[in-house]
Amino acid sequence: MAAPSTSAAQTGRRSYGTTPRINGQRMMDTIHTTCEAWGQAHRYGDHHTETGMARLALDDNDAHVRRWFAEQVEALGCTVTVDQVGNQFAVRPGKTNTDANGNKVAPTFMGSHLDTQATGGRYDGILGVLAGLEALRTIHEQGIETQGPIGLVNWTNEEGARFPLITMASGVWAGVTPLETAWNTKETPAAAAIYGNSDRPATVKEELQRIGFLGDTPATHTAMPMAAHFELHIEQGPILETEQRKIGVVEGAQGYAWYEVTVRGKDAHAGTTPLHTRKDALLAAAQMIFAGNGVAQSESASTPEKKGVVTTGVVSALPGTPNTIPHTAQFTLDIRHPSPERLAAMVDACRSQFAAIAGKTGVEVDWKCLSDNAPAIFHPDCVAAVQAAAEEEVGTVTTREGETQQGWRRIWSGAGHDSCNVNKHYPASMIFTVTRDGLSHTPVEYCSPEDCIVGAQVLLGAVLRFDAKREL
Amino acid sequence: MAAPSTSAAQTGRRSYGTTPRINGQRMMDTIHTTCEAWGQAHRYGDHHTETGMARLALDDNDAHVRRWFAEQVEALGCTVTVDQVGNQFAVRPGKTNTDANGNKVAPTFMGSHLDTQATGGRYDGILGVLAGLEALRTIHEQGIETQGPIGLVNWTNEEGARFPLITMASGVWAGVTPLETAWNTKETPAAAAIYGNSDRPATVKEELQRIGFLGDTPATHTAMPMAAHFELHIEQGPILETEQRKIGVVEGAQGYAWYEVTVRGKDAHAGTTPLHTRKDALLAAAQMIFAGNGVAQSESASTPEKKGVVTTGVVSALPGTPNTIPHTAQFTLDIRHPSPERLAAMVDACRSQFAAIAGKTGVEVDWKCLSDNAPAIFHPDCVAAVQAAAEEEVGTVTTREGETQQGWRRIWSGAGHDSCNVNKHYPASMIFTVTRDGLSHTPVEYCSPEDCIVGAQVLLGAVLRFDAKREL
Repeated sequence: MAAPSTSAAQTGRRSYGTTPRINGQRMMDTIHTTCEAWGQAHRYGDHHTETGMARLALDDNDAHVRRWFAEQVEALGCTVTVDQVGNQFAVRPGKTNTDANGNKVAPTFMGSHLDTQATGGRYDGILGVLAGLEALRTIHEQGIETQGPIGLVNWTNEEGARFPLITMASGVWAGVTPLETAWNTKETPAAAAIYGNSDRPATVKEELQRIGFLGDTPATHTAMPMAAHFELHIEQGPILETEQRKIGVVEGAQGYAWYEVTVRGKDAHAGTTPLHTRKDALLAAAQMIFAGNGVAQSESASTPEKKGVVTTGVVSALPGTPNTIPHTAQFTLDIRHPSPERLAAMVDACRSQFAAIAGKTGVEVDWKCLSDNAPAIFHPDCVAAVQAAAEEEVGTVTTREGETQQGWRRIWSGAGHDSCNVNKHYPASMIFTVTRDGLSHTPVEYCSPEDCIVGAQVLLGAVLRFDAKREL
Repeated sequence: MAAPSTSAAQTGRRSYGTTPRINGQRMMDTIHTTCEAWGQAHRYGDHHTETGMARLALDDNDAHVRRWFAEQVEALGCTVTVDQVGNQFAVRPGKTNTDANGNKVAPTFMGSHLDTQATGGRYDGILGVLAGLEALRTIHEQGIETQGPIGLVNWTNEEGARFPLITMASGVWAGVTPLETAWNTKETPAAAAIYGNSDRPATVKEELQRIGFLGDTPATHTAMPMAAHFELHIEQGPILETEQRKIGVVEGAQGYAWYEVTVRGKDAHAGTTPLHTRKDALLAAAQMIFAGNGVAQSESASTPEKKGVVTTGVVSALPGTPNTIPHTAQFTLDIRHPSPERLAAMVDACRSQFAAIAGKTGVEVDWKCLSDNAPAIFHPDCVAAVQAAAEEEVGTVTTREGETQQGWRRIWSGAGHDSCNVNKHYPASMIFTVTRDGLSHTPVEYCSPEDCIVGAQVLLGAVLRFDAKREL
């Protein structure tokens, strides 16, 4: 089998041959056996693969899969470093591992996350790490000598589902989130109830200690530098499926802002308080949730690409009895747009519409920013490596209608990813695969074996291409 | 001081003199000292009386006030019976206590409840019981011999705030709610968290046992019959205050229906799922909550009395993370109207509007009836007794504008009360007092000392009038 050509030209681009073939069946078996061993939940069909996942960050299932992960990569000659927030960095040596000054050469990394949402699926994050593992297995088995070291990282708590801090540990590593903030983050009430911690919700640091993944290595991008970072991920949207393409070459990720909106009215008896004297916090919140969607609808309608979304995922009302008009309602807003200016405009539109609703209904409204992430524009070298690998793998495809078309397209990520944090310091890009019905963060999330394998093949091709061009 | 005249005419109406004066200061002291000892919460001002209450049914504060209540009434010559759902019936003998066949004579009862909402006030329920206590103290001190026995009942779990079954124990007594249903009702998750029972929420029966109020007497209206039942209560609405009247003579209570509405959509990623492909359960629920209010607005606008309300007090969304479109949203509807036909029409209007929203947004909607209470029309003899007592006490009043007007008015109750359950079997009526800003079920709920005392005076007057007319 052809190994990539790494001709020893001292300057300029090295030529690159064809990408070695991974063992697709082995990768799919690895995905399903590890999901079934650690965290499967929410059965939706009869086949053994037809369940979702509930492998929440730092729970016992996460601990098991982490230990298994370390064993697997060590068997391939990797050393594994665990940092202060539990990130696992596996590194396999290449031809050159130290520079002229005796300093370590930064590896070319692959990476994603092994944690899931509480009602998550088998592909979001998991595919990226286990395709990386398959890539390392292929490199190892086929005796491929890479220019520099090749790495694979399992980022801690990407989902923010148990500990509500999304892309938490890559954020600490990138210097975006203080270490203490991450360590002190408590599990949500819903998660605390699952783990019997309602009386005293656990913190990230406590759980890192409990499962043995509180490492000594500083959680910083200088302590663990990267030549680049490539992440394979399901698209989580409908574009590839709709256009009948196999691969998305990800140019960047849209920005997103998270807010917690608190509406304060007046509690009063539901049976005896006339409509016109009410200050119903939840009734006002309901109108705001609808208005937030309206902001997204008009933003989306204003461009052909239909960009811009607003979502409310969390809502509550107090005191929370059927016969009391709520004095307080709280809800989240997740607002996204690829353009920072348009994102800001959408936030402003929500603010002014909510203020108008508050004025009409006699309530008060407070905004608290939970997270504000600028759009990420991925590095052109990484994007080029992904595109070349995609062209090799799926240059043309035949549609169901019998037409021939390019098998990949450039695409923007709607979601935030660990790669966006890496991209603040080192070159990064991502590879997207087809996602059935565009659905993720749900048990029925699905990427076909064929599409998982194509994606892993492009991941390996991109990494080896990037590595081949390194001047070490 | 004049005792009521009970001339021994064998037939026809007995004449009635003037009602003895209660000790208003003592009653107000009793209200505030017992609130401050057992369950005060939610301070809103500097004065010692400026807190609300959180005396949830069958908690330790409720246990304390129940034991205190029994001591107080026993000191007045009452016997206290506790039934299987913890209702406390205090009975003070009258002139005639058994009939010609040796059977007990049913007492003329006063009653209300000593439990509160989690963010409740000092008057809802508490005023009714403690005004009844003051009436018994007055009768006892002044040596008034009543025709028949006089009773005072403290109904268990009227609020349904901890154990979500409103007017629970009068409902069991009236045969509306099966005993086992009440016994097996679990505390809400919010209440369980307060009491450290999150892992295993307590049931009504367990808590009755724990606090020593699981009585032997069958909880039935035949085991504890009543000649009548009079309940003093804050209006919980703005009508008396707005019209500058002191007393509401309650003719009946509007019907109400409680529903739990479940909306099912599809969970999906908030960043990557285009608006037009979403089935957002919470976005649909928000529109339904707003539409429910719209149904009430148009119903209320169609009559001069502005009858008809719809309220959502409880809402939740799953899976409950900011970046996942909810697959499920759930909310309550509390729908009320004095006319059963209009109540049914309002429910129908909500059903059809919700179905239309579901159709447009691609979600499914399910309704579950939690409670369906027909309007109560109080007994004319009881209403007449209340009206005569009100006429005696506040026949005319002078408004702030210097005009003289009738000090009481006939009124409908917007809320459900234990009296509605009593009224299914025995004559009942209620007396309403002025409620500041119409607010109840909130810590700032307030009825002035003057208005509390006027109300208690009318309660005593109504009970003695009803008793004086009994042929025993």
